[in-house]
This record gives sequence, structure tokens and C-alpha cells, in this order.
Amino acid sequence: MLGYFGPAGTFTHQALRTITDDEAVAFSSVREALDAVRRGQVRGAVVPIENSVEGGVSATLDELIAGEPLAIRAEIVIPVEFGLYAREGTRLEDVRQVLTHGHAAAQCRQWLAERVPLAQVTEAGSTAGAAAEVARPESRYDAAVCARVAGETYGLTELAYAIEDNPGAVTRFVEVGKAGPVADRTGADKTTLVAYMREDHSGALLEILEQFAVRGVNLTRIESRPTKTTLGSYCFSIDVEGHLHDKRVGEALEGLHRVCPRVHFLGSYARADQSRPKIADGFTDDSYDAAAAWVESLGSPYLG
Amino acid sequence: MLGYFGPAGTFTHQALRTITDDEAVAFSSVREALDAVRRGQVRGAVVPIENSVEGGVSATLDELIAGEPLAIRAEIVIPVEFGLYAREGTRLEDVRQVLTHGHAAAQCRQWLAERVPLAQVTEAGSTAGAAAEVARPESRYDAAVCARVAGETYGLTELAYAIEDNPGAVTRFVEVGKAGPVADRTGADKTTLVAYMREDHSGALLEILEQFAVRGVNLTRIESRPTKTTLGSYCFSIDVEGHLHDKRVGEALEGLHRVCPRVHFLGSYARADQSRPKIADGFTDDSYDAAAAWVESLGSPYLG
Amino acid sequence: MLGYFGPAGTFTHQALRTITDDEAVAFSSVREALDAVRRGQVRGAVVPIENSVEGGVSATLDELIAGEPLAIRAEIVIPVEFGLYAREGTRLEDVRQVLTHGHAAAQCRQWLAERVPLAQVTEAGSTAGAAAEVARPESRYDAAVCARVAGETYGLTELAYAIEDNPGAVTRFVEVGKAGPVADRTGADKTTLVAYMREDHSGALLEILEQFAVRGVNLTRIESRPTKTTLGSYCFSIDVEGHLHDKRVGEALEGLHRVCPRVHFLGSYARADQSRPKIADGFTDDSYDAAAAWVESLGSPYLG
Amino acid sequence: MLGYFGPAGTFTHQALRTITDDEAVAFSSVREALDAVRRGQVRGAVVPIENSVEGGVSATLDELIAGEPLAIRAEIVIPVEFGLYAREGTRLEDVRQVLTHGHAAAQCRQWLAERVPLAQVTEAGSTAGAAAEVARPESRYDAAVCARVAGETYGLTELAYAIEDNPGAVTRFVEVGKAGPVADRTGADKTTLVAYMREDHSGALLEILEQFAVRGVNLTRIESRPTKTTLGSYCFSIDVEGHLHDKRVGEALEGLHRVCPRVHFLGSYARADQSRPKIADGFTDDSYDAAAAWVESLGSPYLG
Repeated sequence: MLGYFGPAGTFTHQALRTITDDEAVAFSSVREALDAVRRGQVRGAVVPIENSVEGGVSATLDELIAGEPLAIRAEIVIPVEFGLYAREGTRLEDVRQVLTHGHAAAQCRQWLAERVPLAQVTEAGSTAGAAAEVARPESRYDAAVCARVAGETYGLTELAYAIEDNPGAVTRFVEVGKAGPVADRTGADKTTLVAYMREDHSGALLEILEQFAVRGVNLTRIESRPTKTTLGSYCFSIDVEGHLHDKRVGEALEGLHRVCPRVHFLGSYARADQSRPKIADGFTDDSYDAAAAWVESLGSPYLG
Repeated sequence: MLGYFGPAGTFTHQALRTITDDEAVAFSSVREALDAVRRGQVRGAVVPIENSVEGGVSATLDELIAGEPLAIRAEIVIPVEFGLYAREGTRLEDVRQVLTHGHAAAQCRQWLAERVPLAQVTEAGSTAGAAAEVARPESRYDAAVCARVAGETYGLTELAYAIEDNPGAVTRFVEVGKAGPVADRTGADKTTLVAYMREDHSGALLEILEQFAVRGVNLTRIESRPTKTTLGSYCFSIDVEGHLHDKRVGEALEGLHRVCPRVHFLGSYARADQSRPKIADGFTDDSYDAAAAWVESLGSPYLG
Repeated sequence: MLGYFGPAGTFTHQALRTITDDEAVAFSSVREALDAVRRGQVRGAVVPIENSVEGGVSATLDELIAGEPLAIRAEIVIPVEFGLYAREGTRLEDVRQVLTHGHAAAQCRQWLAERVPLAQVTEAGSTAGAAAEVARPESRYDAAVCARVAGETYGLTELAYAIEDNPGAVTRFVEVGKAGPVADRTGADKTTLVAYMREDHSGALLEILEQFAVRGVNLTRIESRPTKTTLGSYCFSIDVEGHLHDKRVGEALEGLHRVCPRVHFLGSYARADQSRPKIADGFTDDSYDAAAAWVESLGSPYLG
Repeated sequence: MLGYFGPAGTFTHQALRTITDDEAVAFSSVREALDAVRRGQVRGAVVPIENSVEGGVSATLDELIAGEPLAIRAEIVIPVEFGLYAREGTRLEDVRQVLTHGHAAAQCRQWLAERVPLAQVTEAGSTAGAAAEVARPESRYDAAVCARVAGETYGLTELAYAIEDNPGAVTRFVEVGKAGPVADRTGADKTTLVAYMREDHSGALLEILEQFAVRGVNLTRIESRPTKTTLGSYCFSIDVEGHLHDKRVGEALEGLHRVCPRVHFLGSYARADQSRPKIADGFTDDSYDAAAAWVESLGSPYLG
């Protein structure tokens, strides 16, 4: 059984449903979801890693590297799409009281102003909570702005969909499990890690990034985080293209291990977008093998 | 008059109060607060820039660079401290129903388990909202976990303070105004900017960072952000030590302007911690002046 | 009057003749030629800077930065072409005794073996000295392998020309004068300098080269040289594309001044090949001006 | 039997004598000496690699990488010390005619002016040739400025020694053999190579140097050389600290193999000065092994 950062009806819930239709457990915080993985209550958990609506990457990353290490097994990307959901029988033109989370309200402001101009918008603790409230027959709210999964979960009718003012936004989740054998290489993979820097000087970040650059490894995300131990000391949460078993990634990790006081490997896993990286000349596994063979040959030129 | 990302009683509200005791306007989203600055309704606004409880940097940064440019005028750092607040007459041992936001609940879980073991914790949309609810005489909740400012705002009694399990966390805010003359240099300043990279290749980030490194400018924060225009294209939100009028910073900004298709300067302002940077040899203003004078002298060494 | 590293009849002499037909003074070492410039005996001197036949860059560079500083005013490139020169009346088929410098003999070995197979080759101190010896009517040598200028200088007849086995080699000279106003910018210029590094660590050279790279300045030559003062300490003799008055070069020189304990500027001067550099986007003078104007504008965006 | 770049009596000859007292063959050019190694006439050759008096690095490096590859087996460093040598019976105060090479004359000018002020100095093709001439009983020259080995070779008497004006200079030689098993690692080794760059752009040299820097490999010499094939294209002749079998060096060579179109490995060999490199933290063989073991462990965390 999988767990997730709930409640039911959030985008995280929706992300979970792309993996499994089995029953799953909602936890009220990322930490609780991850701790449940750690103690074996669930065999994995889906948590947000980049989510402008329901909170984010920082909390998840902090929790991943606190306590017993866990590993990312998969990435899930969900379009940020909102709908307007009401109890059965409510018509769009009757909606006067809308309940939703502040972020969702902000993202649908224009649509709401144009299509339900008479409606008053009230903020709820979450979009899922708003759907739950609207689902109560006696609720004083007519409709909720929420994810489709929330509308379905609470048996509401969809009055409109894709009502966000700026379509195209996505939100990113990861499925996390106990550290174990790394996921198979698919050719369209990502690797997540946290690298701690030696000292606070202008060259420290460069030193870390050069370990990737000289080996042809592209970054797709970087975020500095203050470490909790030393003032003015940082670590860097990094996603790179490629898999632990791609030689360029493996060698870059070895390089980090040598120049950083600490490196957390958080997993190699298939990219949600299945996009294969464009590996620069000289950085394919074949190039790595050829280079190793060449250096090997230098030591004993006559053995060939 | 200043605005802020409300509601009243949040850490953002508390941050605002470190600047002014004057009346201020709460806005229900960062965007609304900033738009109010843009149209002149308020002369500035306090918004969160790094806040694990109430949302974060991403939304604020997005809003700062969308629409008419604004500028950061000051940084405010607030310790993340929670208290337990109740209506007058409630004793700690009587607390059975606690209301608070999920993040706050997670951060105080241990304290709550030990000190009010019989209490049931219910999640609210925000800690401030929880305080407001608890303030209602007929509320079924006995106490709220919230910031001190919320307790005060809603006339509650403080049953306990600093109840967070991991003290020492801080949250960061900025005061934002219309782009105008940059704040004076204090010697302990920070500069915030967003740099767009030319292409998605492993060297693009290095190219940007080298513009700082060769001029002795230290980064204190970096975060990559996908740009909305091109898939696989990024920009970098960056804080550096120093002020626009420090020569090393000014020259680094010129360098970025040349290698990046776009750079947003979001302001130079006093650091909240008043810590003065350790400027490496060769990178003080005097060193810059001496270097310029030397190169100038090469053009006409003997004036003869 | 100009001086040159003699004797008459060398490639250096030939390089000098591309500048002037006036009388000139030959000096028996690079140092003597440069000292004559320093004390005003000659107003300039032509010395080899890259010359596989008659000695090289090292001596010249050492002498340039020892004692009162001098400046390079022009670059001269001469093809390394040898001819076979004899006294009037000698026919190619009669040549039995050839005199020349060892390097010239090595470079014409194949031609000599094929075209004067019966000739014995004897080594002289220089190709010019060989020509002078052959010019003596009673000389026991029939012909000299030397530069055309030597044949002309000593009144010899050219039996063959361009007899080197690998045509296309060139040798490089500079005209040196007292440090004075730098030569005018032509758009196809070179700048020569010597940069001393702070310490002997793997990053020191990178630190120097990044000063050029971040400003879009291309190197055309680099050579490490041990410094005479500290064991294991180096300086770097460097040629770059561009002129002191190109903004990218001027700013790079300022950068070096800040990170190096010592920098010698040895002049900006027209390239012998008149090739104009391809300046990367963002590094033209216009880009530098635009960047400076932008940063200037940030300080007072609305002047209000 | 070994060969060397002669004639007898040069510093190269002196360098050879530090290795062996056996008979050796003098060749009249570096190319001839190396070709003799290639065709098996001699089992190795001593040639100058950095020699301000008798020619230099450029010719030797060109020849090493032209034709069948050879390998450097040892480095020999010789102090540049000159003496004044005469036929038996000549006293210092009788010396009127001195014969020597122009470079040697320049390096002893001050001593000669003070100690044999009446002597006229004539330039010879080489210091060894000067000694040979002075050795002829009927020579019109009284003394030669040359290396001690030349005085000994030609049976001359030493009138003075260490007469150079700037003592402390050294000259560097290498013993070269057929490419074969690399010399044993001594812990105080050097590796020589030539790396060709991909294109002529400002970053190409940096790209090469970063391959060393990120692996903690220090350079002790670098020299750019124009390649003969493409105009404006360069290769870099490089010496680094360490041995092919030091893991940091081996991995850096693999890195070069990937980013350069061509790399020539010219040998790992004991440094003449026996100085052991200070290897930075994280770059010892142990660090490389630990890093590899760590990355290995990530792939199958439970197998340990």
C-alpha cells in the first residue's frame, strides 16, 4: 500500500492515482508520509516536490535527508488544472458563494470575475477541504475551485474545467521508497542529490558544478539551502539528467564525493516527460569506455 | 500606507510590524499585494520570500518579475516561533481541541504530544485563521497554534510560547516598492536578481556564475526556475553579497547583461542580519579603482 | 635608427627590412639590442619572438621584462624559407661543400640529399655566418644554405630557393621601443602581457584564464615560465586578440591587476596577419557600453 | 647505446653523462637523434627540452609527436654553468681572444668585462665547437667559454668556473625511448602530454585545464603551439605532477581523451628534483577508491 501527503482530493492525490488505483493512506504532512515509509507502514509514498499550490520542494527535500535515507523511485508531473465543482443540480449561473484555497483563487481570478461575476470567493485551508465542505448538503457554499480528483472524491458535479488563467503550469511529485536497488535505467532518467559545500566562498558552488560540467552532465534544477549546522553554510539540492549507471553521472558522483564533505544520493528514476537527454560528443558510455581503454593501453603499449 | 500578504496574524504580518506600527492593508495573495503597489494603492508591501509555513519564494519571485518591475527595498527575517493561544480563562490542562495549519502542526507535533496529550489537532487553512476561529466565544476549538502576532491580533491568551520542536528556523520577507532610486549602501547589503540563460547546455549556469566568481562576488542563494516561454529553458533567481554600488557587484551585473538574454535587477538592500561580507583581496572598491587607474596609465605611460 | 639582433643576413635582419630600408645596427644578443633601446642609442629594435632557427621567445621575453620596461610596437612574421647561395660562377652541379647552421641543415636535409647528393654539409655558427664565409673568394666552401637576405648581404648568387623540406613554417619577430603611448587600434590587434600567479595551486592558472574568458577575450599564445624568485612559482606569457583600448581587453587587464601579484603589459600592436578577431556576441565595445549604461540606469531608474 | 643531440661538449652531452659513462653517439639534430631511436640504432636518446643556450623545447616536442611515437623515460636538470677553458699553459691574464656561442657570451658578459678586460670575444657556432677550436694547438683563440664537459672532452685547462653573471639558471633534458611500458611510479613523477583543442574559441583552453583542475592535478608547464594543419588552431604541450598510474592523472587523461580530438601521451617519469607533490584533500588514490566504492554501493545498497 502507498501513502501520500493528503488530504484526499489534492493534486498529490491525483499524482498518486496515475500510479495505482489501489487504496492508499493520506497523511497530514510530508514528514508523516515519509516516516510511514521508514517504519514500513506503507511501501512508498507520493509527495510534492514542486508545487506552487499545495507547498513544496523545501519541506520534502528536508524530510528526505533527515532520518533514515529514502530514495526517489519515480517522478510524476501533473498539469495544474482547476475546475469549478458543485453539488448536483447547481447551475453555473446560480453560484454565489465559492470556496477555495487562496492560491487557487489567485490563479483563477480572471475566469471567476468573468464567468461568475456575482460570486463571493472565500478562502479555505485547501482546495480539497473546500470540496469536502461544498459536498455537505447543508453547506452555505455553492461551489469549490479544486482539482478534478477532489470533485470526484467528494461526488461533486463539474460545472467548468481548466478555468485557470494561465494554462500550462505543472506541478511535480515523486514517489519515494526505502533506499534499495536503484531503478532500472530507461535512457530518459533523472538523478537527484544533495551536495554540501566545504566552505562559504565564491568558488565552492563553481567547484561543485564543474564536477558535472567536465563530465558532460546537465543540471535541470538547482536550489541552494542553508544548512542547519553552520551559519552561512549551504548545501545544494540538484537534479541532473541521466542515471547513476550512466558513466558520466557515476563519475560525476565520484567527483562530488571527493570534493564535498557530504553528498546524499536520492535516487535515479525515469523522467515523467520521457525526454531523452542530448548527450554531448565525448560523454556517452561508449566514449567513457574508449577513454578508459586508451588510458589502460598507455600503461602497456606493447600488449596490444 | 503599506500592504502585506495577509491575513492578519501571519508571520508576514509580524514581519510588517518590525517596520511600522501604522495601519496596513492585508491582501489575500502575493500578486494582489504587489499589484496594489504597482497601481499606487500602497507605497510598498511586505511579502514572504522564504517561508516554509505560509508559502514561498517561488510565487513572490514570479510576481516580482511579471508586469511592471518592482524593487526590493528591505529584508526582514523572523524566527519561526509558535505559541499556543486560547480564549481568556482557558488553562493548558483543559485544552482538548487544537486548531492550526498542517505545517504548524507538523512543526509542533512533539510538544503537543507531550504537553497536551489529550488534545485532538484539527487542520485549518492558516494559523491566523485558526486564531480567528478560536477567538469566537462559541468556537468548539480550545486553542490555536499560531504566531504571537495572531494571538495578539485576536485578543487571545498565550498558554505557551516557542513550542516548535526544532527551534532556530527563520523565515524571510522582503519589503517591495516601485522601482526607484536604489537604497543606500550600508556595507552589509544584499542584491537580488534573476538571470536568464542563453541555452540549455551544461555550461550555461557556469557561465553565469563565473561572472560573479571572477569579480569576487559571493552568492548567498540560487534557485533555478523553469521559464514559461521555452521548454527546457531556465532562469536563475540569485542573491549575492554586496550592493549595486559596490564596484565588484556593478561590474558583475554588467557582465551578466552581456552574456544573458535578460537580467532583472530586483534591488540592493540592507541585510537583515547586518553581517558584513568578507571581501577577498583584490575585490574591494579600492582594488577596482587601482586596477582602473593602472589600465588608464598604460595608454599613456609617460604622457610624452 | 633601429637596431636588431644580428648578425646581418639572419631572418631577424630580413624582418627589420620589412619595416625600413634605412641603415640599422646589428647587436650580438637580444639583451644588447634591448639595452640599446633603453639607453636611447636606437629608437627601437627588432628581435625574434618565435623562431625555431635562430633562438627564441624565452630570451626575448626575459629581456623585455628585466630592467626598464619596454613595449612591443609591431609584429612581423616572416616565412622560413631557405635558399642555396654561392659565389658567382658556381653551378648547382659543382657544389661539394655546403656550410650552414645545424637547424637549417636539418630543415633542408631531404632537398640537399636529392639535389646535391655529393655535397658534404658542415655546420656553422649561423646561416648568416655561413654566407659570409662562402663570400670569401678563398673559402673552401662552395655554397651556403641561408635566408635570401644573407645571400644579398654578402653578394652571393642564388642557386635555388625555397629548398626547405616542410614549406609553410613562419617565424615571428617584434619591434620593440621605449614604453610610450600605445600604438593606435587597427581592429586587428594583439596584446602581449606577462601575468604572475599568486600561488602554485591547480586553480591559479584557471583563475587567470577566466579573467579573459568571462570577458570574451581569446588567447593566441600562452607559455608558462618559472619565475626566478620562488621555486615552484610560475608566470604566464600570454598573447591575446585585441587592443588595450578594446573594452573587453581593458577590463580583462583590470581583472588581472586585481588577482595577480604582478602583471607586465608589453604592448598592443597590429597583428602581422591583419586578421580581425571574431568577437562573440556581448563582447563588442557597444555591448560593454550598453551594459554600463544599463547598470548606471539601475541606480536611478526614474530619476524620481 | 644511447644517442644525444651533439656535438660532444654541450650541456646535452653533460646531461647524458649523468645517466651513463658508456660510449654514446652524437647526432647533429634532435630529429636525427630521435629517428635513430625509432629505427633501433640507439636504445634511447638525450635531447634538450628547455635550454636557453642550445635551443629548445619546440623542436624536441615537434619531433616527439612527429612520426612513430616515442616516450619520455627520464628528466635531467643541469645547472647552466660556464667556465673559461684554454690550452695547457695559458694563464688567465694572457687571454686576449675568447671564442664562444653568442648566448654564452651574453650570459658571461659582465664577468668577461671585469676579469679579462683586454679580451676580444668572437662568436662560434656552439660552445662545444669553440672548445674544439681552442684545443687546436695552432688556433688563434686563447680560450673558450663553454660547459665543463666541453673543456674535459677537448683536454683543456679550466681557468675559471661558474663565470655566468646570473647563477642559478638550469636547463632541462629528457631521455627518450621507444614507447613501451611506462616507467615505474616513484611518488615524485611528472607526466608530459600534448592535447589538441577542438576549436579556436576562448573556452577551449579552459575546457582542457578544467579536466585537470577538477581532479586535483597540478600543471608545471604549459605552452600553446600552433598546429600545422589548421590556421588559428592550437595544441597545448603540458607537464603535470603525477604519474599515469596515479588515479587523478589517469582519470584526467580519460577526460582529455573525451574532449580533445587528439591527445599524445609522452610518458610518466621521475622528476629530476625528486619533489613529491602536495596532493589536495580528496585527490589521493585512497580518495579515488573510496569514491568509487561509494558510487558502487549506491547501485545496490542492500548488498552490503
